[in-house]
Amino acid sequence: MHGPEHALGVHRVLEPPGVLPQAALRLDADPAITADEVRIAVQRLNLDAASFRQLSEACAGDGEAVRAAVLDIVRTRGKMQNPVTGSGGMLIGVVDAVGPESPLGLSVGQRVATLVSLTLTPLRITDDLREWDGRSEQVPAEGTAILFARSIAAVLPDDLPDAVSLAILDVCGAPAATARVMERSGARSVVVLGAAGKSGCLSLAAARSAGARQLTGLVRNEQEAAALRAAGLADRVVVADATDPLAVAAAVGEAADVTVVCVDVPGAEHGAVLATADGGTVVFFSMATSFPAAALGAEGMAADVTMLVGNGYTPGHAALALELYRSTPGVRALIEPRIDS
Amino acid sequence: MHGPEHALGVHRVLEPPGVLPQAALRLDADPAITADEVRIAVQRLNLDAASFRQLSEACAGDGEAVRAAVLDIVRTRGKMQNPVTGSGGMLIGVVDAVGPESPLGLSVGQRVATLVSLTLTPLRITDDLREWDGRSEQVPAEGTAILFARSIAAVLPDDLPDAVSLAILDVCGAPAATARVMERSGARSVVVLGAAGKSGCLSLAAARSAGARQLTGLVRNEQEAAALRAAGLADRVVVADATDPLAVAAAVGEAADVTVVCVDVPGAEHGAVLATADGGTVVFFSMATSFPAAALGAEGMAADVTMLVGNGYTPGHAALALELYRSTPGVRALIEPRIDS
Repeated sequence: MHGPEHALGVHRVLEPPGVLPQAALRLDADPAITADEVRIAVQRLNLDAASFRQLSEACAGDGEAVRAAVLDIVRTRGKMQNPVTGSGGMLIGVVDAVGPESPLGLSVGQRVATLVSLTLTPLRITDDLREWDGRSEQVPAEGTAILFARSIAAVLPDDLPDAVSLAILDVCGAPAATARVMERSGARSVVVLGAAGKSGCLSLAAARSAGARQLTGLVRNEQEAAALRAAGLADRVVVADATDPLAVAAAVGEAADVTVVCVDVPGAEHGAVLATADGGTVVFFSMATSFPAAALGAEGMAADVTMLVGNGYTPGHAALALELYRSTPGVRALIEPRIDS
Repeated sequence: MHGPEHALGVHRVLEPPGVLPQAALRLDADPAITADEVRIAVQRLNLDAASFRQLSEACAGDGEAVRAAVLDIVRTRGKMQNPVTGSGGMLIGVVDAVGPESPLGLSVGQRVATLVSLTLTPLRITDDLREWDGRSEQVPAEGTAILFARSIAAVLPDDLPDAVSLAILDVCGAPAATARVMERSGARSVVVLGAAGKSGCLSLAAARSAGARQLTGLVRNEQEAAALRAAGLADRVVVADATDPLAVAAAVGEAADVTVVCVDVPGAEHGAVLATADGGTVVFFSMATSFPAAALGAEGMAADVTMLVGNGYTPGHAALALELYRSTPGVRALIEPRIDS
């Protein structure tokens, strides 16, 4: 028996001792697995956009230098965590070995995407990234990665291109959390801020399938409004600047039981609170959300709303998002044009 | 009939037009009230600690200069919002006039504390703050303040010193939210991080009164542990650095249904997630909480926890906190030594 630290991969931390893998300077990327680990034969890394941009700029766009920099990071740290941005990315590979006590339910030979960050994933590269020109976030790679007992991986479906699956898995926490809030609260009406984006349109579809009857999608301009109307995911499409609280309130009109924030710009907190009825719930999925702005804003408006930090993990989130994509033509119509094929 | 903007005081915004009062450069502090407003005869301002410190430093500790600076801010802006820190404070006064459509339930003659920030409260000063030496956050003052329909004020109780009431009202959102989470979720076990502070000890008392049966208080050192044990508010007192996730997990042991974060330092997010059982809830009351750290941390640990942004407003929050203080000797024992009398 191991303690809970083992499930989090603390035994792989080399420096400094006693921290979680994400906070570690160096991980042990030894391909030999313990009883509750899984080894992945890596096929491709998906670098975080902010990380790739920083590396490209630091190397003045020299792809060969970017490649050398990534190799150096992985060799030095035992993981792909950009020391400047702190960010990582995700990876695709084939399950290569499964420890007898692994709770992840994976089988050797399955193709998977890791849904935990590369910043905490032990990684060894064995091909010097020779198939990569250093000019794209998509990195063909050979090597091994380790999943812990409390990691998450999604089996890649056969019926969708990898690029589509990755685009959906990247935001799969939002629709799952939206569905759960609708089901637990019995809410009927929902407003989604940033409704034409990936997480926004999936959240609308999730709310509908969870029983919502009044769905409002708020978007920033007429172009997005036209696309969202054509997709048929919302009962009502309104246009407003999500960072202008009074404009949001005016556009939304009657406040909703649940508001889901999927815009990726700062300043949407107060509009989201105003869009939500007393006793309702706001789910913040934007990483640009300010904790104090949300907390003090609701207090300053005497708004009796429950505010949730959107958790990227909900059991079943990957399968739900992929199924919504398959079964909802409007979601496909909005997401497909965004995929680099 | 007015729109919802009126209840928020948008009609008092002079510059720039169309923003909420908190975001305004200037408010109209005219003492004449509209039908849904309340006028307060001001007795004392309580400046936000960060604001007072900034003013004192900018004036090199010259109290007369600090007094002039506060007067200038209030005259220029129509509210006491420090333009450098952006913060305000709260005030005490007597209800002077109540509009016939005010929903706040106040009566002329009641002594009240405003529970919304001074940053959004129209304020006029009429005594030049002549009773104030500029050397304390407590500012004796005469003048008028305006409450909107969606403001909040608490009637000051006769049986407690003002300083005690203010200290409790300052944190009254935490116990109310804790009680609500316990009641709605049927949770039995709770961990409070920062349990010996004002909001922490009130949250423990609120959890107990809401039916919690296993209460754990986490504090940072043996001195606080001794005080919390003596207060008798927790079934178990443990000592750990709240910013060290593995230390928190080890100290807490079995994870709890609900974790309440009352420490006022950054970095408590991951420890709070680890202290919480799958399916449980974390309530973040620390203004030092990082939204991305909470969201990405829970995802990285595949933690199926609900995370709440602690809303400073819950209906009945002031009365609940004052009643917990009166009825709980352990709460009084922890809070009284903190009051400047």
